[in-house]
Order: sequence, then C-alpha cells, then structure tokens
Amino acid sequence: MVKFELDERLTRDSERLTLLGLCDVRLMRDSRWPWLVLVPQRPDVSEVFDLTPLDQAVLTFEQNLVASTLKKATGAVKINVGALGNIVRQLHVHVIARFEGDANWPGPVWGHGSAVPYEAQPCDEFKRKFLEALQS
Amino acid sequence: MVKFELDERLTRDSERLTLLGLCDVRLMRDSRWPWLVLVPQRPDVSEVFDLTPLDQAVLTFEQNLVASTLKKATGAVKINVGALGNIVRQLHVHVIARFEGDANWPGPVWGHGSAVPYEAQPCDEFKRKFLEALQS
Repeated sequence: MVKFELDERLTRDSERLTLLGLCDVRLMRDSRWPWLVLVPQRPDVSEVFDLTPLDQAVLTFEQNLVASTLKKATGAVKINVGALGNIVRQLHVHVIARFEGDANWPGPVWGHGSAVPYEAQPCDEFKRKFLEALQS
Repeated sequence: MVKFELDERLTRDSERLTLLGLCDVRLMRDSRWPWLVLVPQRPDVSEVFDLTPLDQAVLTFEQNLVASTLKKATGAVKINVGALGNIVRQLHVHVIARFEGDANWPGPVWGHGSAVPYEAQPCDEFKRKFLEALQS
C-alpha cells in the first residue's frame, strides 16, 4: 500500500492546525486572508471524484464543518471554497474567509500577488480562536 | 414558502444544459474554457453549509458526477471546482475543465479578462458530447 505523504509545496506554504478523520487541516502562511487548506490523507488522489464515495461524503462533512467554523470565528462576509490543483496536484481544498475590501476583493485569492507572512501574535490569536470555535 | 429563482446575472451569463435532482447544470457563455455551473435549486442559500445535510450530500454527488463527466468529455488535464460567490451571492458551484496553456493557466479562471462568446457549432458540439457522456 502506498503511504500518504504531504506534498512539499503544501508543507512549505502551510502549517497544521488540526487533524480530522480524513483531512489534515492547515493554515496558509499568508496573513492577507484567513486561509485554510484541507488535505485528505489519501495517496495518489488529485480530483475529488478520485476519492471513494465514503471519502467524498466525509470530505463534504469536514469541509462544511471547517467552512462554517471559519465564518463563525472570523465574521467573514463570504467563504470561498475551491479545489484547483493546477500547480500542486495532490488533492487539497481551499477554504478562505473573505471580507469586502480585502486583497483582490471580489476577485479570487489564487495567483494574486505574494504571500505576506503572519506576525507571531495575530497568528496565535487566529489559531486559538479557530480551534475554540471548532470545539464549540 | 419562498420560491427558487435563478439569479439575474447567472441567467445572463449561462444557459441550461440539464436539470439534475438538486441542481440546474449550466454552461457559461465563455468559450475560453469548458465551464459549467451547478446551481442548487434552493432559495436563499449562499454557502454550501447553509444547505440541509441531505442537500449537501446530493450536491457532492451531482458535483462529482458533473466533474468526472466533464473530464471524460473533454480530456482535461485538471478539473477546477469552486464556490466563491463574492459577486453573485446565490449559491453556485463552478466546475471547469483546464488544459496546460489555456487562458490564464495555471491561474484561476475567475476575474481573468472578458468572456469570449461561443460560435454556434462548437457550442452545440460541446453540449452534445457532454450530455452523451453524462448518460453513458
């Protein structure tokens, strides 16, 4: 059996927030938006429809849990969800909190400018808030 | 009970391909990419997690059916799936066939340039091919 290993670029660009039943839930190292990525821990999968039907259902559940929690934790106007994978082929689902007037609003976050790293304090604060909301 | 009505901008920018159990499956009037939009026929919903759990599961099923069919019908390198809604708030899920070297590859399709209308023949051909693949 092939073992799941997180893609190198995802490893570099994000850090783990928590593990759910299927997905590694990660925070992008980019303070411009509260931006999470869910990575189903399955090897050799690049499209959602490559997952088994059960994994597809679990992904939907975890994705919607994370999305609604992110909305609650941030008060975002809109949550953006996307699975693109044109560059990193390992299946990963973006869940991003958007606000009127944020960077590139109302356009997409992907491909817009360069990442702005977090300062330690706002990053810790965000993580605490998100994980608290996830448990409540 | 509030009746579902398709958003004006979605009506203008796309045309119906077929109706599934939950979703209106529509073709964007933009020949730069084979670009479909699924609109769950439920009023007053703007986030996937606003749907009932059953509707969430059905949306996942229909979305993956449409995505795998689009890949089969077009031979795309990658399928891009996204629910953004920063401009049109009625919940709609984009399913787009991407090819190396297509417009804005490997960036996202949203917010890139202006739509290029289809000629009648390639449009009819695409619709026939997609609907055949959906039924097979």
